[in-house]
Amino acid sequence: MKKETIIALLHGPDQPGLVAKASSWIFERGSNIDHADQHKDPEANVFFQRVEWVPSGDPEHEADAFKAFAESSLKMNTKVVLNTKKQKVALFVSKIDHCFHDIILRFQANEMSGELACIISNHKALKKAAKTYGIPFYHTPFDNTDKASVEAEQLEILKKHSVELVILARYMQILSSDFLNKAGVPVINIHHSFLPAFAGGKPYHQAYERGVKIIGATAHYANADLDEGPIIYQDVTQINHRNTISDLIRKGKDLEKSVFAHAVRLHLNNRILVYNNKTVVFD
Amino acid sequence: MKKETIIALLHGPDQPGLVAKASSWIFERGSNIDHADQHKDPEANVFFQRVEWVPSGDPEHEADAFKAFAESSLKMNTKVVLNTKKQKVALFVSKIDHCFHDIILRFQANEMSGELACIISNHKALKKAAKTYGIPFYHTPFDNTDKASVEAEQLEILKKHSVELVILARYMQILSSDFLNKAGVPVINIHHSFLPAFAGGKPYHQAYERGVKIIGATAHYANADLDEGPIIYQDVTQINHRNTISDLIRKGKDLEKSVFAHAVRLHLNNRILVYNNKTVVFD
Amino acid sequence: MKKETIIALLHGPDQPGLVAKASSWIFERGSNIDHADQHKDPEANVFFQRVEWVPSGDPEHEADAFKAFAESSLKMNTKVVLNTKKQKVALFVSKIDHCFHDIILRFQANEMSGELACIISNHKALKKAAKTYGIPFYHTPFDNTDKASVEAEQLEILKKHSVELVILARYMQILSSDFLNKAGVPVINIHHSFLPAFAGGKPYHQAYERGVKIIGATAHYANADLDEGPIIYQDVTQINHRNTISDLIRKGKDLEKSVFAHAVRLHLNNRILVYNNKTVVFD
Amino acid sequence: MKKETIIALLHGPDQPGLVAKASSWIFERGSNIDHADQHKDPEANVFFQRVEWVPSGDPEHEADAFKAFAESSLKMNTKVVLNTKKQKVALFVSKIDHCFHDIILRFQANEMSGELACIISNHKALKKAAKTYGIPFYHTPFDNTDKASVEAEQLEILKKHSVELVILARYMQILSSDFLNKAGVPVINIHHSFLPAFAGGKPYHQAYERGVKIIGATAHYANADLDEGPIIYQDVTQINHRNTISDLIRKGKDLEKSVFAHAVRLHLNNRILVYNNKTVVFD
Repeated sequence: MKKETIIALLHGPDQPGLVAKASSWIFERGSNIDHADQHKDPEANVFFQRVEWVPSGDPEHEADAFKAFAESSLKMNTKVVLNTKKQKVALFVSKIDHCFHDIILRFQANEMSGELACIISNHKALKKAAKTYGIPFYHTPFDNTDKASVEAEQLEILKKHSVELVILARYMQILSSDFLNKAGVPVINIHHSFLPAFAGGKPYHQAYERGVKIIGATAHYANADLDEGPIIYQDVTQINHRNTISDLIRKGKDLEKSVFAHAVRLHLNNRILVYNNKTVVFD
Repeated sequence: MKKETIIALLHGPDQPGLVAKASSWIFERGSNIDHADQHKDPEANVFFQRVEWVPSGDPEHEADAFKAFAESSLKMNTKVVLNTKKQKVALFVSKIDHCFHDIILRFQANEMSGELACIISNHKALKKAAKTYGIPFYHTPFDNTDKASVEAEQLEILKKHSVELVILARYMQILSSDFLNKAGVPVINIHHSFLPAFAGGKPYHQAYERGVKIIGATAHYANADLDEGPIIYQDVTQINHRNTISDLIRKGKDLEKSVFAHAVRLHLNNRILVYNNKTVVFD
Repeated sequence: MKKETIIALLHGPDQPGLVAKASSWIFERGSNIDHADQHKDPEANVFFQRVEWVPSGDPEHEADAFKAFAESSLKMNTKVVLNTKKQKVALFVSKIDHCFHDIILRFQANEMSGELACIISNHKALKKAAKTYGIPFYHTPFDNTDKASVEAEQLEILKKHSVELVILARYMQILSSDFLNKAGVPVINIHHSFLPAFAGGKPYHQAYERGVKIIGATAHYANADLDEGPIIYQDVTQINHRNTISDLIRKGKDLEKSVFAHAVRLHLNNRILVYNNKTVVFD
Repeated sequence: MKKETIIALLHGPDQPGLVAKASSWIFERGSNIDHADQHKDPEANVFFQRVEWVPSGDPEHEADAFKAFAESSLKMNTKVVLNTKKQKVALFVSKIDHCFHDIILRFQANEMSGELACIISNHKALKKAAKTYGIPFYHTPFDNTDKASVEAEQLEILKKHSVELVILARYMQILSSDFLNKAGVPVINIHHSFLPAFAGGKPYHQAYERGVKIIGATAHYANADLDEGPIIYQDVTQINHRNTISDLIRKGKDLEKSVFAHAVRLHLNNRILVYNNKTVVFD
């Protein structure tokens, strides 16, 4: 049995006593802090904190009370969640399946604090596999219709499943900024290069052409500017002159899988704060 | 100008309210926390904390007062230092010079919060280089005398220079446990393998013999059990069948330099707590 | 369409003219070398070569002719294969499934030059998953019978499927040296530590206990000495004091998957020569 | 004593029999190949080879004879050198000294198959250190004169010292394409980012601004297009939100040192062929 805890993520203008006030509020309740980590951006003078504690009273009530306290007394932007709460996740895919299988298997192996609520794809290629995994699959093709109405349909699906996080496992379509606004939930994308190098659709070809000696993958939150969102995690691997573009693609698949999974796990464990188009990752 | 801060390292049995009490003590003084990081060992039920703050009053006095408070009221093992305090460091070497040059150059480039007070060696090989760097060099050979009297001489040198940290840059002698006790200061050693693999004096030969595909280096605190002390930092690099023992030694030198320097920096930045023959590293 | 090539792996005592004689044999046939790589162990005075070429005549006949030539005229231990030949592979598993899923998905994505002929397990846990993947599954439990008769049954299965490579994806049983001899094919195992550190069955617990800062995985050929066979590939990842044993296991799973797959791919691409309990890997 | 060998680097249009003809030429002389490695670019249909052998006759004469053979009979671009030949290297620096000290110490520790013939700088900052190392130092300031005449002076120095390789250890000036042409020798530069990301003069600031999670360093041959030359080697390290720009610079220094040294070593060991603005590195 997983121990029930409350996790709070706070950020806002720095002021003296923030750590003392937050921890005293918890202590005075008779609750006990398990982890507390904070960060200060000295240039922006912004304070960030992640604190996790074992509640003494009713968890939901204590979580709400802390949020009210942190917002009114500390003037902090505050998100409070229970660690036992499984966030609903929507997985977007096209035809490429390595991140698809990898992330689903990780959810099914309980590596992730969340639940895969649905799969949405513009192709039918992975429909059968989705069925085998027992996850609802929605086919929303772009073929004979305008993008706006497809996105409207997708938004309906997100709503129906109470989705709290969208993850793009090599989904080969750009989400409109209208979609991102209406969805109102974070979207994590995996890009197959070490951004900002090789943005765009053919990074392995560009890497081969340029003759780089490393390739990489980048997980980031999607925003309206393609490949420009806050970076969550990156990793790279060495390549050499013997590697063809096919080799780069194959080696890159391993990076994409592990980088994508790592970023999704960090998010579901409530370890990421976004500020100023950058991430603070409490790992 | 470096901002003056107080750094406290605490550890002891966990109890509710430790974060609240420590941070409130600081807040009530009118001081302001810059960084606070804590860790709990759930199996041993031990609490660890590193907290760094800008003092409101006289730094030395406030540091002493916090130490008294943390020991008496929180019952914590407590070390408190000022970040502006430069620890005196003694560098032990033999003939091998790569870590010797590397660490001295890092001190001279102000990468380290400390001061190289003296160099002690059982050989004269690096005497001239030490002079060029402007650091006192002591030659304490083992040739015609017993180990105990050489170590007694070395202890005198440490005392004379008020040494607070000993670092062994490929010093090819084993320090007796009597020496370690009498020195009464931490000793950091660099071992040329990824411990616990290949303990002992010829790790690259052993690695070559076994046919491993990675080699490594380990920085650890020295204790009476050779190569068994608490590990601070480790790193590795890939090797292949083309690499001779000479190649392993050459590649290993780069690892030794960076791993050694990283561990010394962490120590001098007061980021390490030792417990149960392991390290908690607040980085 | 994959271009058909012949791949030869040679090793034996060094002598002048080996490269010239082998390449001239190929050239005089009107065939053309695509890749040639050689290595000399200067201490053992042993020559190793991997050469791959486009045959001018019937591939099988030319392969046989080269083998006869290299053995009789060059006195080399010689293995010759066609790159289009898909080796039959038997996958041994118990209950742990991360390497199981990962390696099967890689075969199904055509990342591997081989064919998964059958799955053999001492448990039924993965029977259903094997069926979904469409691969014959054999349940050979050790419960009520002696090891020898179970192994005899397993040998029959290998024979029936003409298996040329056995891969152990966290198979929790030790293969007897009698089994290894009778199987007569290479066996690749994945061990969940950076050998030679932490041999045995509980490496993550040992790593946690020792307080190391890196964990690793090792793929090696199995021989009669447990965890002592020739190492094919190793990789590691950094850990810290916050990581519990569960975290080590989770992080280790990613290493195990990628290290295991890499080693199996190298083997199936005919890139590995074993000599003196070490591997020469032409990558 | 280092065994004397001849090293040949060849490239040109692929044709059948290249390996056979080159190795037979060597064998028929009674010489013996130590290492031979080749590569084929399947798209460009270009063949690359590095072959190293122990000559049977006078090394210089045999080297010349092979070059004549390879150029006339094989129609290959050919470079032939003796492994005992120490190339003269000119080191360009400004004020930044970490790569300066590191590379000099490596030359003095015999890690490099070459000789540091001279140091050229637009500043006097490292003059004293150069003297301590015993290497001629030339001060060629840009202050009161035009770039062309300073470069002319530098070209004279290169000529005087018979320089065969120029290495730029964080030299903060751009070499004109006129200088590069007239120098007529390869120039290796270390850039403090993982190119093509963050070209230009302030990569660590750009990396901080963008919020990347890795930083890197790139060694490349300099050409007229700044930061666009053929990449020799790259490496990266992880960073996090706690790292300030100062931390990035400090961590980056370690990368720059090791990446720069690695590239210079590869070049001096005659392991690099340049083709089509990319490198083939026989390592």
